[in-house]
Amino acid sequence: MLCSNLSVTPAGRLLFAGVDLKDLVAKYGTPFYVMDEDRIRALCRMYTEAMRDAFGKDARPLFASKAASFREMYRILKEENFGADLVSCGEIYTAATAGFAMENTYFHGNNKTDEDLAYALAQGVGCIVVDGVDELHALARLASEKGVCPKILLRITPGIDPHTFEEVATGKVDSKFGEAIATGGAMAFVREALALPSLSLAGFHCHVGSQVFDAGVFLKSARVMLSFIKDVHRETGFLAGELNLGGGWGVRYTASDPVYSIRDNLLEVGRAVRALCAELSLPMPRILMEPGRSIVADAGLTLYTVGSVKQIPGYHNYVSVNGGMADNPRFALYRSPYTIVLPEKMNEKKTMLCSVVGRCCESGDILQENVALPASVRRGDLLAVLTTGAYNFSMASHYNRLPHLPVIMLSGGSDRLVVRRETLEELVARDL
Amino acid sequence: MLCSNLSVTPAGRLLFAGVDLKDLVAKYGTPFYVMDEDRIRALCRMYTEAMRDAFGKDARPLFASKAASFREMYRILKEENFGADLVSCGEIYTAATAGFAMENTYFHGNNKTDEDLAYALAQGVGCIVVDGVDELHALARLASEKGVCPKILLRITPGIDPHTFEEVATGKVDSKFGEAIATGGAMAFVREALALPSLSLAGFHCHVGSQVFDAGVFLKSARVMLSFIKDVHRETGFLAGELNLGGGWGVRYTASDPVYSIRDNLLEVGRAVRALCAELSLPMPRILMEPGRSIVADAGLTLYTVGSVKQIPGYHNYVSVNGGMADNPRFALYRSPYTIVLPEKMNEKKTMLCSVVGRCCESGDILQENVALPASVRRGDLLAVLTTGAYNFSMASHYNRLPHLPVIMLSGGSDRLVVRRETLEELVARDL
Repeated sequence: MLCSNLSVTPAGRLLFAGVDLKDLVAKYGTPFYVMDEDRIRALCRMYTEAMRDAFGKDARPLFASKAASFREMYRILKEENFGADLVSCGEIYTAATAGFAMENTYFHGNNKTDEDLAYALAQGVGCIVVDGVDELHALARLASEKGVCPKILLRITPGIDPHTFEEVATGKVDSKFGEAIATGGAMAFVREALALPSLSLAGFHCHVGSQVFDAGVFLKSARVMLSFIKDVHRETGFLAGELNLGGGWGVRYTASDPVYSIRDNLLEVGRAVRALCAELSLPMPRILMEPGRSIVADAGLTLYTVGSVKQIPGYHNYVSVNGGMADNPRFALYRSPYTIVLPEKMNEKKTMLCSVVGRCCESGDILQENVALPASVRRGDLLAVLTTGAYNFSMASHYNRLPHLPVIMLSGGSDRLVVRRETLEELVARDL
Repeated sequence: MLCSNLSVTPAGRLLFAGVDLKDLVAKYGTPFYVMDEDRIRALCRMYTEAMRDAFGKDARPLFASKAASFREMYRILKEENFGADLVSCGEIYTAATAGFAMENTYFHGNNKTDEDLAYALAQGVGCIVVDGVDELHALARLASEKGVCPKILLRITPGIDPHTFEEVATGKVDSKFGEAIATGGAMAFVREALALPSLSLAGFHCHVGSQVFDAGVFLKSARVMLSFIKDVHRETGFLAGELNLGGGWGVRYTASDPVYSIRDNLLEVGRAVRALCAELSLPMPRILMEPGRSIVADAGLTLYTVGSVKQIPGYHNYVSVNGGMADNPRFALYRSPYTIVLPEKMNEKKTMLCSVVGRCCESGDILQENVALPASVRRGDLLAVLTTGAYNFSMASHYNRLPHLPVIMLSGGSDRLVVRRETLEELVARDL
């Protein structure tokens, strides 16, 4: 199986985190997202320990909230002593109302409005990752008006092409994010920041790739960023105390994705960072990283009910489920791969190739193409899309006026609702 | 300009439906969707009259709700004596609570659950467009249990490739929608429906393309469908009284899209249908069509505020706005073209080529590439994306935990809020 939290009973039933999904259906109906709290916590601990071992005791992982932002996530993160990266007032509000300590948050975004910045200052977020010169001046003005001196990092684009999908490749020079080293923009950005007394520059942030399965990209960005820290020190006298290397560790969506150890790769990055610091005669900066997907993706799956099976002789087979691009737009957006199974027919031979499609009135509403399923699939069967814990709940739309799905959290074999299903009344609540 | 509801003052300010957008900003803030009620009503009347002139007095246009479903839309449609096509319990609920008469609705969808069908029967929708055999039997059972005999159409795929985008091409044989004539599936579907006494078969539905700028596709589907009606009559004795030809009339998103007359094209389709009926010795069926996009798209625009302008020498320029793929995912999904302007700088020369990007923490969050804007564009400027009245509000997500935007309706120079902005409290209301 893709992940250790998946298993199959002798009778051919899928267990997720030890729970038979059928037991959840009677209680919650379908479709729903279900998440494995024990897996989330285990991955949080792996990151905390591996980063400490790799980079020293002040290193810290921050959860990239955009992968999955709801209040229970922040309660779990708080107990795991994690930090969080937040990208909007909505994420700040969600974390704050869950009791998450704002001093452990970093506020990101390529376009923070004055209202966003004022809200972040009012809420006391721990650090603002300033994305560009426009924002720098807006924040300096707001901080000055408020009489505060917020800690900031500057977002730098190291100019590395991670050779992954264009849509998730954000560390290249040609990016809406940050200021590039290669163009001189980054150094000018640093000089502007240092000239603003209402801002407290602590260091730099970069983020290069996504779905990265080895240390290569991080080794490259560490080298580029540490050299930049050295150059900045030489040219301005400012010595960066923090270096945030971003996120992007890969997740196994299908059996063809590699099995690898994030811990081993982090240790490799740690050795490289120490060697580079020695080579450049730099003190080791505090290292931050921002895992999101790699903490929650395989801790989640989506359970649907099959509604129709169409076999078009000579063409294609279609299996439709009672959800789709509204709750998981990632195939429609990126043609993202997913593994799909029938949880009650795990021991049946998969002899029918089909497209698993959603219920939206749109041909592009596809969850996955070329899926092998048992030929006995029929209306009423359960169907699970695996590894949907990241970027599914958080990207959900109301297309076709479909309500948002609930999130069920599993822990130690028991289940609890952590986000409830949206009601029809709530769907129209803003309509006057 | 793209549409008659856009004009520019001598001072270079954009007016939409006669209103200076700046006046709305003080009242509502940005970002927001704004819609032109007078344009919506004019297009509704054009369709009603043109369809009557083309197909006779019992012809009827149905609004394809998925383009824009909120309560005020249904109030306008009701006053314009329009029908509506609905695709979910959410759309049924929205229309019903707006006072829209359920007997004027058609319920669509490739995967209606038992719950959906029971809800549609309970609400008294006028007609259920049955998509396949699985649904046919589920509906027959539910209708029988309830002791009702609902009117149904059968969704048929005529096997026509409309030569438009794959994602919006739904009338081909290889489709998740309907049953195909070419495979014999459609005829078998009819026989099954006729054998079920709890269902009242009224005719057939098809939908071929989207963004169609001439009568060609409709002429082809009318020919295929009328021949099918003839074949069905010959083989089963059933004579279809209704033929729903679907929607798909094109909208001008950019100046390169053709100017054309929907009325003239409908009249052409009308002449062809009459001639075909005469040729096949068929009585003229009642013709239905389902315009959605072509009624609301150019009746809407989205107004944003620019947050950052980045010029990366030798690469690219990026203009970021305070919205993006969460309120308009169509470029991210389909690379859809849009026209973008600075409403307060309409007379300035457009000398800077840029990507207009959103605020989401994702490289793929792009509203449009290769946009020419005045080089004076800066943080704080207003920026309008035109022709967003269709598939923007209705496709909006909560990605990055961004609240849904409000919808402002303009009529006769005055404005009113018809969907209010989502609050942070509402964003987390389902989080336990």
